[in-house]
Amino acid sequence: MEVALVGATGAVGVEVCNVLKARSFPVGRLRLFASERSAGKALSTPFGDVSVEAFSVEAVRESTYAFLAVSGAFALEHAAALAAPGGPIVIDNSSAFRMDPSVPLVVPEVNAHAIGSARLVANPNCTTAIAAMALYPLHVAFGLTKVIVSSYQAASGAGAEGMEELRSGLALSLRGEEPTPKVFAHALPFNVIPHIDAFTENGYTKEEMKVTNETRKIFAAPDLAVSCTAVRIPTLRAHSEAITIQTARPITADGARELLRSAPGVRVVDEPARNAYPMPLTATGEHDVEVGRIRQSLVFGEYGLDLFVCGDQLLRGAALNAVLIAEATLPK
Amino acid sequence: MEVALVGATGAVGVEVCNVLKARSFPVGRLRLFASERSAGKALSTPFGDVSVEAFSVEAVRESTYAFLAVSGAFALEHAAALAAPGGPIVIDNSSAFRMDPSVPLVVPEVNAHAIGSARLVANPNCTTAIAAMALYPLHVAFGLTKVIVSSYQAASGAGAEGMEELRSGLALSLRGEEPTPKVFAHALPFNVIPHIDAFTENGYTKEEMKVTNETRKIFAAPDLAVSCTAVRIPTLRAHSEAITIQTARPITADGARELLRSAPGVRVVDEPARNAYPMPLTATGEHDVEVGRIRQSLVFGEYGLDLFVCGDQLLRGAALNAVLIAEATLPK
Repeated sequence: MEVALVGATGAVGVEVCNVLKARSFPVGRLRLFASERSAGKALSTPFGDVSVEAFSVEAVRESTYAFLAVSGAFALEHAAALAAPGGPIVIDNSSAFRMDPSVPLVVPEVNAHAIGSARLVANPNCTTAIAAMALYPLHVAFGLTKVIVSSYQAASGAGAEGMEELRSGLALSLRGEEPTPKVFAHALPFNVIPHIDAFTENGYTKEEMKVTNETRKIFAAPDLAVSCTAVRIPTLRAHSEAITIQTARPITADGARELLRSAPGVRVVDEPARNAYPMPLTATGEHDVEVGRIRQSLVFGEYGLDLFVCGDQLLRGAALNAVLIAEATLPK
Repeated sequence: MEVALVGATGAVGVEVCNVLKARSFPVGRLRLFASERSAGKALSTPFGDVSVEAFSVEAVRESTYAFLAVSGAFALEHAAALAAPGGPIVIDNSSAFRMDPSVPLVVPEVNAHAIGSARLVANPNCTTAIAAMALYPLHVAFGLTKVIVSSYQAASGAGAEGMEELRSGLALSLRGEEPTPKVFAHALPFNVIPHIDAFTENGYTKEEMKVTNETRKIFAAPDLAVSCTAVRIPTLRAHSEAITIQTARPITADGARELLRSAPGVRVVDEPARNAYPMPLTATGEHDVEVGRIRQSLVFGEYGLDLFVCGDQLLRGAALNAVLIAEATLPK
């Protein structure tokens, strides 16, 4: 089976290759596509060295699956043509189609059923996908009524360039020099930037509204009250989130832990006595999302919890989720 | 007038000297006290070089004001003796006396009146004090009913050693070596640690419960519902906080901005169009707490807001607040 990866040279692209291998996805031939500039370059992948091809709709349509790890603009331009009958199942990591009512938006552990016979499937926003792993089991069991998220988002959300800008900027900062931001709106070393993606009219950023709107779509809960403050911090590739929930039915920390221990894609890390809680240090490179610091809400009482989640932005937030979507469409 | 500073060699101690000068506090003679180990050392201060004295109750009692920038254990042992009649007004930065009903806990812009004739005044937790600057004016005008805080706390909360551990650890990390944490429970470089101070029985940390309990005491609102998730991140000395509030009376983002523009100790930084919002980059070294990202809550509707605050941990979170307490007790 031929698998195409468009945007092979980016941070997400690299992880898609790794995850395809780690999950033993039935890759017969892996084809890597990128811009003209990268064409001809040989990339080392877990499937051996693969020569990068210049993107063309025709070439990608020869595959059975196509992963798009490209910009929203690029996806908007090409996804429909790629996914037209006779072409591959296209899994798009951009935000272009996520809120399109005709395109399923999927976290496989939550709503794989929504894929149906779709040829184009949208991969959710990273912060949304990571939170969904912990929130959905709680939603099913206790009925979420309010969700308040504050995120601690890594540089990788802005791609390999974001990670590089953080590293090189920190090296400068430590030498007492001032880093000049290019990828981020301000210098990220030793800083916190409460601004991810563009601002919208209501004062929330697009990133924050993605968490609201995508969570509603994935959970099929169009009225769920969700608010987010999305914040970039100087970490590399795992996003953390402090989440407060209110539920329709009484909930306890013990009950939530018990439930989440058997939830797919979740690792409960919640042993304060041995300093164990979710952290980028331990969640980076892991497929499962860490969930911990689960405690009865001091604000919503027996109808609420506070919790903390941490997940690899490039894996659950992108590559892993995309590959799991593809898996869900494999003939059984 | 003689002013004593106990704990002169720590990160907060250094800032107390700077703030005394910046605020033109009427310092006749500044006396610096520290442990035996530092005694005799000359410290450069804005009041000239001052030789550090070994701490003794008798010596400190010769002053009119005594600032304690020491551990809770040290404060517990000595504060009462220092503040006994005939001694100085003692302003303690530790948590030792904050919840003692006989000791006022003061953010001067909020409850200077609580000082009364007290000889011992407690300086609040840094996260609490920074949040209070934005929250109290809103509380007075709109009646807070729920407050949900997620913090982004700097290394300076653990003192000069915490800042040094972050810097040296980052230098190691950038060279591909693994830093060994001593001050923090885990390595802080490129990490996020949702654990500040010890865990308590309800699953919240002491730091988190300080935000709940101290806010209630400072606002004289014993039933105010406050929950906090306190998180250490790799920044140096400004704490940020994402805050969601519910209010008793309808509130708008515009109304809150208007109100906060005239609030003492607050700087409204809320112009998304020019990428202006609170950040450690701009709040560090500033006396005012930055408040921005003010927007109507998607969860509490017209009865709520989301906002973001950032303040210098060593200033509003410690030294500045302490000096302002002293100012409030100066004869008019």
